[in-house]
Amino acid sequence: MAFKKILIVSGTHGNEINPIWAVNQFSKEEKKIDKNIEYKYIIGNPLAYERGCRYIDSDLNRSFNSINNSINNNIYEINRANYLVEMFGINGSDPCEIAIDLHTTTANMGTSIVMYGRRGKDFCLASLLQHKFGLPIYLHEKDKIQTGFLVEAWPCGLVIEIGPVAQNFYDLNIINRFLIIMSSLRDEIDKLKNNQINPPKGLVVHVHQGSIDYPREKYGNIDALIHPKRMNQDWKRIKKGDPLFIDMEGNTKTYKGEEAIWPVFIGEVAYKEKNIAMSYTKKELINLPNKIFEEFFS
Amino acid sequence: MAFKKILIVSGTHGNEINPIWAVNQFSKEEKKIDKNIEYKYIIGNPLAYERGCRYIDSDLNRSFNSINNSINNNIYEINRANYLVEMFGINGSDPCEIAIDLHTTTANMGTSIVMYGRRGKDFCLASLLQHKFGLPIYLHEKDKIQTGFLVEAWPCGLVIEIGPVAQNFYDLNIINRFLIIMSSLRDEIDKLKNNQINPPKGLVVHVHQGSIDYPREKYGNIDALIHPKRMNQDWKRIKKGDPLFIDMEGNTKTYKGEEAIWPVFIGEVAYKEKNIAMSYTKKELINLPNKIFEEFFS
Repeated sequence: MAFKKILIVSGTHGNEINPIWAVNQFSKEEKKIDKNIEYKYIIGNPLAYERGCRYIDSDLNRSFNSINNSINNNIYEINRANYLVEMFGINGSDPCEIAIDLHTTTANMGTSIVMYGRRGKDFCLASLLQHKFGLPIYLHEKDKIQTGFLVEAWPCGLVIEIGPVAQNFYDLNIINRFLIIMSSLRDEIDKLKNNQINPPKGLVVHVHQGSIDYPREKYGNIDALIHPKRMNQDWKRIKKGDPLFIDMEGNTKTYKGEEAIWPVFIGEVAYKEKNIAMSYTKKELINLPNKIFEEFFS
Repeated sequence: MAFKKILIVSGTHGNEINPIWAVNQFSKEEKKIDKNIEYKYIIGNPLAYERGCRYIDSDLNRSFNSINNSINNNIYEINRANYLVEMFGINGSDPCEIAIDLHTTTANMGTSIVMYGRRGKDFCLASLLQHKFGLPIYLHEKDKIQTGFLVEAWPCGLVIEIGPVAQNFYDLNIINRFLIIMSSLRDEIDKLKNNQINPPKGLVVHVHQGSIDYPREKYGNIDALIHPKRMNQDWKRIKKGDPLFIDMEGNTKTYKGEEAIWPVFIGEVAYKEKNIAMSYTKKELINLPNKIFEEFFS
């Protein structure tokens, strides 16, 4: 890949405002630095940001499988997805080879990476960040209900997902974490290019298995909440009998599966409408042959 | 006042969901208890709750000064305010003598009381709760920009304001605090009625003085955030020179006033659109003559 530009997208969800602030600050500081690899910055969903909501008509980060679908051309986010790809896609007018999409979550995910499917170039980037910071990685794959993620429209791309932080709430600690990721990412790529780093031999990922909805009564209303022992316990292993939910009468609903799982996005506010109280994963070690790092710049 | 019914309003702001859950749970438990004083329950803004937003057209909790204003009859919240008063107002079809309006805030306000103006009956109720729990009280008065609060449309009423909690985020600790307030409030009134309590001699209030907006650049965008030393420090006294905001370059903006103040609602997410980064108060001790407690039931 003739490696020149990385697209940094913030505000793909309009109420995740800390990445937007971080990018603004980063781009001001960056003008003073001379770098080989250029960053391009764009707000994914500027109208939703202006209105302080996640999206206008539909979730932008599920809208990239409908590109060029003229039937949907009244949907703001489909048009916006088209625009972003036409502008900054690999065949766009200002092409970027990599897309980094910055998100926040109300769940206690810490600083984490989300990747979609098993692309060699994504593994390279993700392993560099995990190698440096020990970040957990959520590998989202084989989920037929959730598709059309932004970074999938680029040949290489990752989501950086940081939490917990409330929607529309500025948090300087969260902002600082995005600043660190943005500067580190380019540093690591630069080092790799200049053979100043030993490529990692592998990485640990949490592979998406499915999602669990809240218990609901007959009209579809939520009638039990995340159990206090499960709240904020993202990335922590649970086994059969561990509590998941608690209802108004104090009854506990437990995990019934035979195999241990690792829940993520526990209680994420924006996923209630998707009928997701938490998703769950299994841990997997992935070996990385040296040649995928060599191919990264080819 | 022929004292019979207390109206408990939750979801006056549709994205403050913990009070709605708490009321639902409380009303289920309550069916088992025989009480002299009846509670009525209503969701203030059901459509906004359904959509997960604060309001549809305008802030319901600023809409009670426009009652019977037929010019505004296309505004959902004005119609809703009219309905609530016609239904549960003191001259309504199912009259309630007291309104308790349950709110959450993203600011670190703890469990607190908000009252509007200096009404004797409000002071009675507020002092009973402060006497029992030591709750801080925010006395909102003489603010020409913000008027039309729900509880002002009843002869007696308080806002219970609990935080910090994110919008649309369920938090069992917050829910439990509302449950405690709802049961305690009636217990205290019951005790007062049966002469089982010594009426408090006074109460401490934080009296609203004004609000401070975020620093903004020429296009109106926020260009400095709440300083880390000010975040979560609601109800704490500040003096000249104490930091208020910090910008992207790390410059600090300090408090310039000569007199000490006590900020509240620091960084409340919903107040950004009202150009409020925080409000500020002064402390005042208010003496309560015994006769206002005697008049409470008259």
